[in-house]
Amino acid sequence: MRIGELSRATGVPVPTIKYYLREGLLPQGELSSPNQASYGEPHVRRLRLIRALVELAQVPVAQVKEILESLDADDVPLHDQIGRAHRALTPRRKPAASDEARAEATAQVTDLISRRGWSVEPEAPALATLIETVAALRTLGQDNLVGFLDAYAEAVERFTELEIDAVSTNPTRDQLAESVVIGTILGETLISSLRLLAQESISAQRWKT
Amino acid sequence: MRIGELSRATGVPVPTIKYYLREGLLPQGELSSPNQASYGEPHVRRLRLIRALVELAQVPVAQVKEILESLDADDVPLHDQIGRAHRALTPRRKPAASDEARAEATAQVTDLISRRGWSVEPEAPALATLIETVAALRTLGQDNLVGFLDAYAEAVERFTELEIDAVSTNPTRDQLAESVVIGTILGETLISSLRLLAQESISAQRWKT
Repeated sequence: MRIGELSRATGVPVPTIKYYLREGLLPQGELSSPNQASYGEPHVRRLRLIRALVELAQVPVAQVKEILESLDADDVPLHDQIGRAHRALTPRRKPAASDEARAEATAQVTDLISRRGWSVEPEAPALATLIETVAALRTLGQDNLVGFLDAYAEAVERFTELEIDAVSTNPTRDQLAESVVIGTILGETLISSLRLLAQESISAQRWKT
Repeated sequence: MRIGELSRATGVPVPTIKYYLREGLLPQGELSSPNQASYGEPHVRRLRLIRALVELAQVPVAQVKEILESLDADDVPLHDQIGRAHRALTPRRKPAASDEARAEATAQVTDLISRRGWSVEPEAPALATLIETVAALRTLGQDNLVGFLDAYAEAVERFTELEIDAVSTNPTRDQLAESVVIGTILGETLISSLRLLAQESISAQRWKT
């Protein structure tokens, strides 16, 4: 199909498609003449994914590029590919805590992970984020929120096995990798909006006048 | 204290503090002479909060401003103030789904909320985000992830009561409102990093060679 049809099939305007092509997010089409490229089903699929990441999940374009590159790296073992997608998905955050608060947070998080029997690489970016967040909560005087780490970890364990089961059923490696990316990012949006709705509901029961 | 001491107390550079003052994120200090302002403990507290939101949670500065304004609106009933903070906290997302996918998603989400007995305002922004995300997952062919809505909702219910209990213990309305904001945003970072670590751990058990 031509670029106009690709635009109609996905709802993405032609100038935006051209921008994604220039930025290398979307692979070039096949040249059918010197001035005309032709696009196929993989372009439709990729464009829908880009749109969900950029517009719905509000991932910055530079990070989307890294995420898509991790999708295309299917010559590595599955666990490594998932790790690569996870690293691309974890925003790099500036450290905002004092060294002392970070040392305490590190001890608490290490203890949590060992109690739950999780096997986690010491250099996992999500580990750094978790430690930095715990340290920030302490600095902000919100120690009671830190007390929820175990409740959160337990809740998360309840659906993680299901999530990994679901992505495992994908027939091809490409589809599996795509599911990991979509599930990680949009699953997070599902969880956070459900959490806000549950909070609203309980707050209404308790305080609504 | 002077601006230099405020900078040392919080680890935020003086030019950044001046930027937050200009943008109205941080209230002006008290003028001790025509060229010199003096800052107090509320400035330290507010600056630590801004830093956690901007640097750790990566909330855009314009949105941080709205969030802080919702904190300062303590002349409204508590449930309304929490609602205002929630609205400021929910990023406005562009719709990315077809009308048909959105209609199906709306029916599914409405059914979920009624089955769980949640009392939620129809115009809650988190509701729109949830519907849009379910619609996007369908469009992306990830219907199996949509099947987790109930598992996610059940997991979220397990800690929401605890969260609301914890913020309720704050001695003043100001501190309570601050806890709601911090808990909502940084609690989300805690949950998402724990989820990535749990996924990594299960992926390692299954596929690491």
